[in-house]
Amino acid sequence: MEKLQSVYYFLDLAGTFAFAISGATAARKRNLDLFGICAIAFIVACGGGIIRDLCIGAIPPAGLTNWPYLVVAIIATLLTVGLFSMVERLNRPVLFFDSVGLALFAVTGAQKALLFGHNGEVAVLLGITTAVGGGVIRDVLLNRVPVILEKEIYASAALMGALLVVLGNYLKWISGDWVAIIALTVSFTLRILALRYHWNLPVPSNNKLPLDE
Amino acid sequence: MEKLQSVYYFLDLAGTFAFAISGATAARKRNLDLFGICAIAFIVACGGGIIRDLCIGAIPPAGLTNWPYLVVAIIATLLTVGLFSMVERLNRPVLFFDSVGLALFAVTGAQKALLFGHNGEVAVLLGITTAVGGGVIRDVLLNRVPVILEKEIYASAALMGALLVVLGNYLKWISGDWVAIIALTVSFTLRILALRYHWNLPVPSNNKLPLDE
Amino acid sequence: MEKLQSVYYFLDLAGTFAFAISGATAARKRNLDLFGICAIAFIVACGGGIIRDLCIGAIPPAGLTNWPYLVVAIIATLLTVGLFSMVERLNRPVLFFDSVGLALFAVTGAQKALLFGHNGEVAVLLGITTAVGGGVIRDVLLNRVPVILEKEIYASAALMGALLVVLGNYLKWISGDWVAIIALTVSFTLRILALRYHWNLPVPSNNKLPLDE
Repeated sequence: MEKLQSVYYFLDLAGTFAFAISGATAARKRNLDLFGICAIAFIVACGGGIIRDLCIGAIPPAGLTNWPYLVVAIIATLLTVGLFSMVERLNRPVLFFDSVGLALFAVTGAQKALLFGHNGEVAVLLGITTAVGGGVIRDVLLNRVPVILEKEIYASAALMGALLVVLGNYLKWISGDWVAIIALTVSFTLRILALRYHWNLPVPSNNKLPLDE
Repeated sequence: MEKLQSVYYFLDLAGTFAFAISGATAARKRNLDLFGICAIAFIVACGGGIIRDLCIGAIPPAGLTNWPYLVVAIIATLLTVGLFSMVERLNRPVLFFDSVGLALFAVTGAQKALLFGHNGEVAVLLGITTAVGGGVIRDVLLNRVPVILEKEIYASAALMGALLVVLGNYLKWISGDWVAIIALTVSFTLRILALRYHWNLPVPSNNKLPLDE
Repeated sequence: MEKLQSVYYFLDLAGTFAFAISGATAARKRNLDLFGICAIAFIVACGGGIIRDLCIGAIPPAGLTNWPYLVVAIIATLLTVGLFSMVERLNRPVLFFDSVGLALFAVTGAQKALLFGHNGEVAVLLGITTAVGGGVIRDVLLNRVPVILEKEIYASAALMGALLVVLGNYLKWISGDWVAIIALTVSFTLRILALRYHWNLPVPSNNKLPLDE
């Protein structure tokens, strides 16, 4: 249990870092000022988790009360701002870091909801929320239709991760650590494959309009 | 009391269904993918209620913990996607379903706030929030100024419904069931008449700019 | 303590009034109808505080349960609508009222978080949230990138105010009343000077794109 706690804590910080990088990169591209970049980085990193904590009654939300999250978000911001010319040249770095955070947050989000004694549906929905909430807030603040609603298997990967956590928790075939590792791997792999091979969910309509400038 | 509970439960599901249809239709028109449509449908249906539950301390929010809401939202999504060519040909179906959900949610939202022991102001404000919250989130996610802030008597109809519930609760002239039925009828009728006769609240400014593409 | 409570209450109402004016002015310029203007005014005035109250567990949020806030917001709306031709001619009235509310809300927001027994980080983050939350929601609803993320020292002034409250609370060199007065003055002055002399935080990128139409 203690081991799971450490893993859980490490995963949470790693996810925070990945999402903060993703947020800072997107904010930087929109020419926000230093505070704006830092704020978007923090919100992307902690926004989903804060919504989750409000919904499960974990008051005050972990993202607000534990300084490591804030420090990790600030470090990620400084790295992104300092090394932007390098980061920019990397192939779709935003999408890569987003995928890491996505899988990590879906799994830890679902775990925390279960830890607080809520049912499987709450765990799945809040696992997805933890994973995609920050990104959705980022896109809303940057004034565009959230990327995850339009293209590529994204939230579906988070859904898979959260679902595996809940399934593993009910079936209890293997230890919670292994459930987390498997859920993480499946979710991350699904997302990366979707990116690599341009897997998309069906779009019911045909005439695709340009929604993003 | 038990009867009120059943009515309350039925109204809640019916409102969920109506809003999910409205959300799925709007999302479909913006060419979102299947997950995006489903997410918008669910958020429109349950978003207002989730905000209400967070504000009255009903943790976890009913929209997240009761599977019928999720199932109803998914069914509404599938119907809208499957029968879109038919739905599209209907005259302003989005607005119609929106009106149904609007009245239903304003009344049940105000009722739930009172049930949790909060005062009349909280009940009225959260009745409106339950009714229009989902639609506002939908418009924010679809990247447009919320329809309800610009035109036609919409939130005012919700205000009327919630206000009648609170008044009925304080005066106690008639049973809660009748209060709910009257509040529902007045609110829905007001909204439908506003749509039919293009009733608008005054817009203080004259030169109306095109805000929606 | 009682004196602090009265000051706290007065500041809260004054901040509500200032923010409501700012919200109503922005909404009016976008040609929203009377309800839309009133809603934006109320949300700008109480939105940040409601998020703060949800995060510190103050259920129901003060903005929803105390009628003076709602009345103050309505009065501010009516004043703005009634005297718009005058208000419009004033030089940047929105920005001025925004600055007043900014300093007031940062300080009272941080104070309330401390009052509820949360740590310094929560108080600083929620002080900023109280101050800028309403404005961010306003810009999101009016479909533009939040002003505070792009230009001028704004949230930084709120950060300074909240930080001084937390510092004063830990050091206890002077009474809470004086801490509040100093924090308010510093925060408001910093914001006004930034407006006057166009102080900006560095924008890491050079080619500034037009984001607002």
